Amino acid sequence: MNRVPVEKKVLSENDRIAAELRTKFREHGILCLNFISSPGAGKTSLLERTLEGLPREARVAVLTGDIQTDNDAQRVARFGFPVRQITTGGTCHLDARMIERALAEWRLEDLDLLLIENVGNLVCPASYDLGEAAKIVVLSVAEGEDKPLKYPAIFFKSELLVLNKLDLLPFVPFDIAAARENARRVHPGMEILEVSCTSREGLCAWQKWMEKRRAAFREEIAAPAG
Amino acid sequence: MNRVPVEKKVLSENDRIAAELRTKFREHGILCLNFISSPGAGKTSLLERTLEGLPREARVAVLTGDIQTDNDAQRVARFGFPVRQITTGGTCHLDARMIERALAEWRLEDLDLLLIENVGNLVCPASYDLGEAAKIVVLSVAEGEDKPLKYPAIFFKSELLVLNKLDLLPFVPFDIAAARENARRVHPGMEILEVSCTSREGLCAWQKWMEKRRAAFREEIAAPAG
Repeated sequence: MNRVPVEKKVLSENDRIAAELRTKFREHGILCLNFISSPGAGKTSLLERTLEGLPREARVAVLTGDIQTDNDAQRVARFGFPVRQITTGGTCHLDARMIERALAEWRLEDLDLLLIENVGNLVCPASYDLGEAAKIVVLSVAEGEDKPLKYPAIFFKSELLVLNKLDLLPFVPFDIAAARENARRVHPGMEILEVSCTSREGLCAWQKWMEKRRAAFREEIAAPAG
Repeated sequence: MNRVPVEKKVLSENDRIAAELRTKFREHGILCLNFISSPGAGKTSLLERTLEGLPREARVAVLTGDIQTDNDAQRVARFGFPVRQITTGGTCHLDARMIERALAEWRLEDLDLLLIENVGNLVCPASYDLGEAAKIVVLSVAEGEDKPLKYPAIFFKSELLVLNKLDLLPFVPFDIAAARENARRVHPGMEILEVSCTSREGLCAWQKWMEKRRAAFREEIAAPAG
């Protein structure tokens, strides 16, 4: 029983499709962000607050992944931007093929921002490249400050950590300085934002981060390759 | 690229070892419980409160699974019962082989309760039988009442749902009646307990559940096979 070679094969097939997606996204100037967290850390709420803050003419679309239900897509659809639910039917992560299929009916020419909400899982989605420009990990303060040390892969691979549910801080034993230190022990220099999607604290900094990231992406794809 | 047959092979190898473990547990009169939840839902806290409530002479041991760190084993070891950490090194779940190896140095004759804390993941551990008598799913009220619908497998397969962090109820938008209804939609008749490992509310009912479950197990293994 040797599982590793098969997983490698599955992953390299995924990597091939992800690389194609990444090329397409760059050609069309689409910044793709892949949001990853435990179940219930607040990915959907962060997307809601994000879409709410965008102008109506924003060229944004959302893919939301879940094992079952289209609850998240329904929540996100209220803001009037194109949304598609990917129901994995048991699979614990999104893969590049699912993204490729979900995008098939959209005109990429119409987009410049694609937000992907992964399946709620702090482990497996870390291993699957979706062609995104950046992974963003969301951690709720209700989960505990030790999580970066216990689930290092996703904190290492994510460009940004969004510490969410700041409004619960008075009611939970969460040491925010230790959380930041743990994240940077796994990923030195990691960017970290603290927000509450309920009280809306910190959301301006999040909007600014998005604007800066979008500008950096435009510069990056405008630069001559080489 | 066809992944399914390989997963089946891996699973049936796992099922074979799990069946052997289950037989051993029954022969030695060991009730084995497999605790599963998202990261940070409170599995370790529930174990701490459980061990704290047991007499010093209790014949209990704990296996705690994590991708990295032995933080949980350290927390649990304070109560003086045998504890072993299983560090999976990236794998998103415990499997039966890991349990078999971790048990190798313990005398099963000395135990009658084995508590297994799985890796924090609401998805993958549902697929791996560890030879346990029952799975117990822990859901924190900070995670949202929709989780049974979004992650049905683990709620379907668990005998008991422990709704944890009841002390946060005033501060989070969690509809406890809807959570119970969602759990029972996925798993009719599912047992549900509400606890807070912080305020200790509901822990007596949890202790009583454990006592009842242990008694039922003793009766079950004393009955002639047939």
